[in-house]
Amino acid sequence: MTWAYQDGGFVPADGAHVAADDAGLLHGRGLFETFRARQGRVYLLERHIGRLRAGAAALDIEAPAELDRLPTTVQELAERCELPDARMRLTLTAGRQAGRPSLVLHARPATDYPSDAYTSGVTAAIATTRRNETSPLARIKSLNYLDNLLVREEARRAGADDALLLNTRSSLAESATANLFIVGGGDVLTPPVEDGALPGVTRSAVLELANAAGIRAGEATLTIDDLQRADEAFLTNAVAGMLPLVAVDRRNVGAGEPGEITRRLRARYEEAAAAP
Amino acid sequence: MTWAYQDGGFVPADGAHVAADDAGLLHGRGLFETFRARQGRVYLLERHIGRLRAGAAALDIEAPAELDRLPTTVQELAERCELPDARMRLTLTAGRQAGRPSLVLHARPATDYPSDAYTSGVTAAIATTRRNETSPLARIKSLNYLDNLLVREEARRAGADDALLLNTRSSLAESATANLFIVGGGDVLTPPVEDGALPGVTRSAVLELANAAGIRAGEATLTIDDLQRADEAFLTNAVAGMLPLVAVDRRNVGAGEPGEITRRLRARYEEAAAAP
Repeated sequence: MTWAYQDGGFVPADGAHVAADDAGLLHGRGLFETFRARQGRVYLLERHIGRLRAGAAALDIEAPAELDRLPTTVQELAERCELPDARMRLTLTAGRQAGRPSLVLHARPATDYPSDAYTSGVTAAIATTRRNETSPLARIKSLNYLDNLLVREEARRAGADDALLLNTRSSLAESATANLFIVGGGDVLTPPVEDGALPGVTRSAVLELANAAGIRAGEATLTIDDLQRADEAFLTNAVAGMLPLVAVDRRNVGAGEPGEITRRLRARYEEAAAAP
Repeated sequence: MTWAYQDGGFVPADGAHVAADDAGLLHGRGLFETFRARQGRVYLLERHIGRLRAGAAALDIEAPAELDRLPTTVQELAERCELPDARMRLTLTAGRQAGRPSLVLHARPATDYPSDAYTSGVTAAIATTRRNETSPLARIKSLNYLDNLLVREEARRAGADDALLLNTRSSLAESATANLFIVGGGDVLTPPVEDGALPGVTRSAVLELANAAGIRAGEATLTIDDLQRADEAFLTNAVAGMLPLVAVDRRNVGAGEPGEITRRLRARYEEAAAAP
């Protein structure tokens, strides 16, 4: 049986629901997080909770007290669903007018990425839709997420795995559902939040792991030119981890295969993420 | 008692709900329409339905057959709620994965605009958030609507009634929740959809009513300069109708009061909208 958690208790997944006039549905006033739970444990869960709280504050949504118990809730949901490796989705809505926010946690098997995505790498297409870095929503993971999915669907119809988004000033922002990194001259670089990059949990972890490993890593405004001249590139999010990016618009990035620094960093990331 | 309509039947408004994993909530994959129902009748309802259908097609959502009965549904909801003048909100979600879309209609009293908004006009502030005209969502009324509400809230904190949005190329697009028109040299002009204007039902009606009245009216790319040089300006949406716009960023538009062409057009619009 598939379960979900909602507002303090577990319900059959089919039974979790929100009011049809919840502002989360009416206008997308709400937040979400996606992450992977291995044996009921989520790598850097506290950072996901922190980002959700920051987004809630930005949207004037009162974060419910039950958020404090999320690590236990995640574990119990994984057990109830019998999912040793789960992809989970946490949703916080603003609630009905003068009502209370609603917190929902869903789980499903973590099967999104075939293993050859890691060994052979993934491809991307540059989207025609721009990332609107002028909006405060570019910096929070809000329920206004359809642009991201539409550009990914467009990219997949064109034969690519993912889409890369430029911002309104034609700098690289991120991929449809992941942060973008390039490697050049041994340095690891990712677009700053001001350029429209979502402040990704995995993004920050990779920056820290790289620097701890003696690899210079930081933020920089990046252009398509920078990407085309890069030695390596990769994508990060909390469900997939690190995905080598080997071609963009049918043109190889570097040698067109996962690069050495990408592989080294990914090994460190997977080790950290799998640690008990 | 307050009622709502959901998926074929009437329910107490508190009881209308959607699945917590409906794509409409998860990612804002869905559409909405807002309109005013006077004595259970909506001016140009068929155009609202048409726009909803077009948006559903763009998002690959199957429009439910019950949409055909919407005029009757609107009338019955107004009667059940005892609302001779109602503001209604129609929501169509994409549904759960492999599931069916959900159609919900809510009603509340039409009390959003004080009458002096029409006699004295309203004010606006230019938002720092840009309208992303590069996104397909700029042309459909999707559930990704939070940017619009956030810029309006920001404008209201600054003492204005509404916000005007520039697009990524610094042309005027629309207001937070209405289309923008300017009047200059006797001509009535509104930004084209390609500039980020939502294809408003009231917008198209006003263009037609103006031309029928011998006033030249059409689309044109407009800048802040054009607005500052305009003789008059006004905003349109299906709930408020036509609202004179008399100041932007604390600077008068024209004489700083509702203009003659705005008043003439509004009289024609109200006459048409109130016709049985």
